[in-house]
Amino acid sequence: MINKFYKKVNDLDLNLIIKKIKIKNKLNSINNVKINNITTLDQSKKNEVTFFHSVKYLPLIPKIKASYIITNEKFSKFFNKNQKLLIVDNVLLSVAKLTSMFYPDALNDDFESNFIDASQFKKFKKVKLGNNVIIGKNVKIGTNTKIGHNTIIESNVEIGTGCTIGSNVIIKKSIIGNNVNILDGAVIGKKGFGFYPDKNKNIRYPHIGLVLIGNNVEVGCNNTIDRGSLSNTIIGDNTFLDNQVHIAHNVKIGKNSIITAQVGFAGSSTIGERVSIGGQAGISGHLKIGNNVQIAGGSGVIKNIPDNTKVMGYPAKDIRIFLKENK
Amino acid sequence: MINKFYKKVNDLDLNLIIKKIKIKNKLNSINNVKINNITTLDQSKKNEVTFFHSVKYLPLIPKIKASYIITNEKFSKFFNKNQKLLIVDNVLLSVAKLTSMFYPDALNDDFESNFIDASQFKKFKKVKLGNNVIIGKNVKIGTNTKIGHNTIIESNVEIGTGCTIGSNVIIKKSIIGNNVNILDGAVIGKKGFGFYPDKNKNIRYPHIGLVLIGNNVEVGCNNTIDRGSLSNTIIGDNTFLDNQVHIAHNVKIGKNSIITAQVGFAGSSTIGERVSIGGQAGISGHLKIGNNVQIAGGSGVIKNIPDNTKVMGYPAKDIRIFLKENK
Amino acid sequence: MINKFYKKVNDLDLNLIIKKIKIKNKLNSINNVKINNITTLDQSKKNEVTFFHSVKYLPLIPKIKASYIITNEKFSKFFNKNQKLLIVDNVLLSVAKLTSMFYPDALNDDFESNFIDASQFKKFKKVKLGNNVIIGKNVKIGTNTKIGHNTIIESNVEIGTGCTIGSNVIIKKSIIGNNVNILDGAVIGKKGFGFYPDKNKNIRYPHIGLVLIGNNVEVGCNNTIDRGSLSNTIIGDNTFLDNQVHIAHNVKIGKNSIITAQVGFAGSSTIGERVSIGGQAGISGHLKIGNNVQIAGGSGVIKNIPDNTKVMGYPAKDIRIFLKENK
Repeated sequence: MINKFYKKVNDLDLNLIIKKIKIKNKLNSINNVKINNITTLDQSKKNEVTFFHSVKYLPLIPKIKASYIITNEKFSKFFNKNQKLLIVDNVLLSVAKLTSMFYPDALNDDFESNFIDASQFKKFKKVKLGNNVIIGKNVKIGTNTKIGHNTIIESNVEIGTGCTIGSNVIIKKSIIGNNVNILDGAVIGKKGFGFYPDKNKNIRYPHIGLVLIGNNVEVGCNNTIDRGSLSNTIIGDNTFLDNQVHIAHNVKIGKNSIITAQVGFAGSSTIGERVSIGGQAGISGHLKIGNNVQIAGGSGVIKNIPDNTKVMGYPAKDIRIFLKENK
Repeated sequence: MINKFYKKVNDLDLNLIIKKIKIKNKLNSINNVKINNITTLDQSKKNEVTFFHSVKYLPLIPKIKASYIITNEKFSKFFNKNQKLLIVDNVLLSVAKLTSMFYPDALNDDFESNFIDASQFKKFKKVKLGNNVIIGKNVKIGTNTKIGHNTIIESNVEIGTGCTIGSNVIIKKSIIGNNVNILDGAVIGKKGFGFYPDKNKNIRYPHIGLVLIGNNVEVGCNNTIDRGSLSNTIIGDNTFLDNQVHIAHNVKIGKNSIITAQVGFAGSSTIGERVSIGGQAGISGHLKIGNNVQIAGGSGVIKNIPDNTKVMGYPAKDIRIFLKENK
Repeated sequence: MINKFYKKVNDLDLNLIIKKIKIKNKLNSINNVKINNITTLDQSKKNEVTFFHSVKYLPLIPKIKASYIITNEKFSKFFNKNQKLLIVDNVLLSVAKLTSMFYPDALNDDFESNFIDASQFKKFKKVKLGNNVIIGKNVKIGTNTKIGHNTIIESNVEIGTGCTIGSNVIIKKSIIGNNVNILDGAVIGKKGFGFYPDKNKNIRYPHIGLVLIGNNVEVGCNNTIDRGSLSNTIIGDNTFLDNQVHIAHNVKIGKNSIITAQVGFAGSSTIGERVSIGGQAGISGHLKIGNNVQIAGGSGVIKNIPDNTKVMGYPAKDIRIFLKENK
């Protein structure tokens, strides 16, 4: 799925990689070695590079099939002599650089210039298009879908049947289910806010994930939903988002949830099913919010919330305790 | 006023209605009965259906002139034998279904496809239009009004004299006064975030209200102002809204108020005159905020606020108490 | 710099000025006196008008070279007999009126109607333009810059080399550095939310400042960045702004700062270098935030913050204290 959206360089010479990510150790027989991707520990294959940057991934070490492993000095002790390491100072920064080498387009969100001519729009059967619509190459649009004025659907995007896409909408790097409403001014699938701060010029982490939107979803006006970095940003079936909601990269929201206006999600949090979030609430990054959770408007959630809980406040706590303390 | 914006089906057969909203009681002589609208208790007329779903409307029962009344088992005792009831499980859900039958277009916010040709723009006297403007049928635009590039004014919208509408603006289902500024990227008049959660596919409540904007109003960039459901969303004369403000359905804001950036209003709250609200404050739904109220930035208002009060905090309280508690 | 963006009336007759701002004192020999600008105390020159409205500007009085000084009764004692005063009730309101007389266009943000024909776009060397782009007169665009679909670059704007401007972006009254990314839907350079509340029709303060954006900056989707009033709004080099951020007039943000999604800045605050602000935080107006400050997401900052401080909460306080109090 990812390949379709991001053009990958076929092979990179190991010497070139070593030079770019600045390894600190010496390797033997590195000439004429071709590497053809960078992947996560558990999904890695021969002739690929993977990376190890946290002890929480120790259980995955036996699963590594990659030919080379980017890691740092400290973690090198976890590997045996047969495992070829690329020792660097900052693992994630090196991963960013190598990912950029394989996916040079993923760093940029240049506007879609590879679009089809309006004369080809007739290939979309039973699709109603507004004025000044721009559609990239290899876009799929299901029957009975409507796409409003000035809207831009970038290359390879897939939109299901019976959808209503508003005007001034921009959709890129996304796969969208059936009967989905995306309202005016929403921007879906741009790169996330991920980078390494650097004194002179921050270094962007390439985001090669997608936005996956289920069936019967509604996305409100002027929403911003960023695509995933290595995984995807996901909105589950029948979840409704009100206006001016912001969803950062890698966030996953379950089915049948209700997200009211101006709510914001920081990156990589997972939200359960049947979750209801009141207006202007904020959810910090890397959290797990259970099923059937209710979060009052204006709350600031900074830790995990178990299933079937109602919370309120900043930081958000049990709603009865909050209301008792704040009579 | 509403008729112009929403096409109403003329007559519906009572048998069809009964089937659709699934009534639990038995009615006599229901054949060949035509119903021609659904209205509120106090405005209902013969051959219409109205609905009763809360004891707070008991005083209105004597005013009912509708031929049929949707209510539930529990409330049926309030009616006499001559009043013909349609007993259902969920009154508002049935009202949603019946409203959708009468106003089938109100459920959707499909992009305006019924627009006039640019060659007809000359009928707008002393109006200055940007590039790529789209104007629906029966739109009225006063003299000395300017409408920016890529802006969409949907059918039947009325805009007064001396207005400045920015670029990339979308206006639908709205009536706008004189000397109003609507800044770039604002979306005005879309359907509100109202629906019945349903496991497989949420059921939208049709919103057949309007947005009414007074004279000398300013609406900031990227604002979202939703139209009313059965009543209207109203912005009073000379009220100014900063950027990124969200106003949900049925909210009514009085004259001479100042709403700073990123403020959000949940549905159906009423805000007085000369109210000042600081940035990022949130106002919960169904509240009454008095005249001359000042709400500090970042506050979360969850209960009514009397006239001439300054509040701050979350939940918002008297500002002196808040500041004393939070030194 | 300002002259290029705002057309200034050359000379105004002092009699006309006096009438417009309604002075309360009597002046001698006011016929045939021409005034050619209104400026701040320290920058004022002969034949200009300046203004004094706060004791904090007392040290600047000796620097005044303006021929006339707008002030009120109370402050008139600070001036000597040779200084010609224009005594008014409300200094800033009079300044607003006089500024409007000199810069009549600064009050309005009418859409750009003075744009060049697409046939002239070839003058921008090595610049890639999307569909339906509108470019005002005297715009400068550096090489290797890309400008997305439907984007509007208004007259006199300057954009550096290697920039990526998204689609549906509006830029006015701005000077933008090199390697800057401005993402889809951002609105940059509109007039700020500054006006004198007036019962019948608020009186707008003309904003004749600019937005100055440094090198390597990123501005997120649907951001709104207002231009300065008399000074400028400034975003320092290598500062990144996430989506849905709002920046009011005169705000100055230092280099290498990170502003996460949905953050809002009220007017005239100054933010240091290497400042990090979490999602949805709000910064009140006229504050000074030091260097290396970290502000947790959701915080509400209502007072100055010294260098090297971490704060959280509403009102924001030392993060350790906040977390201890809110376990």
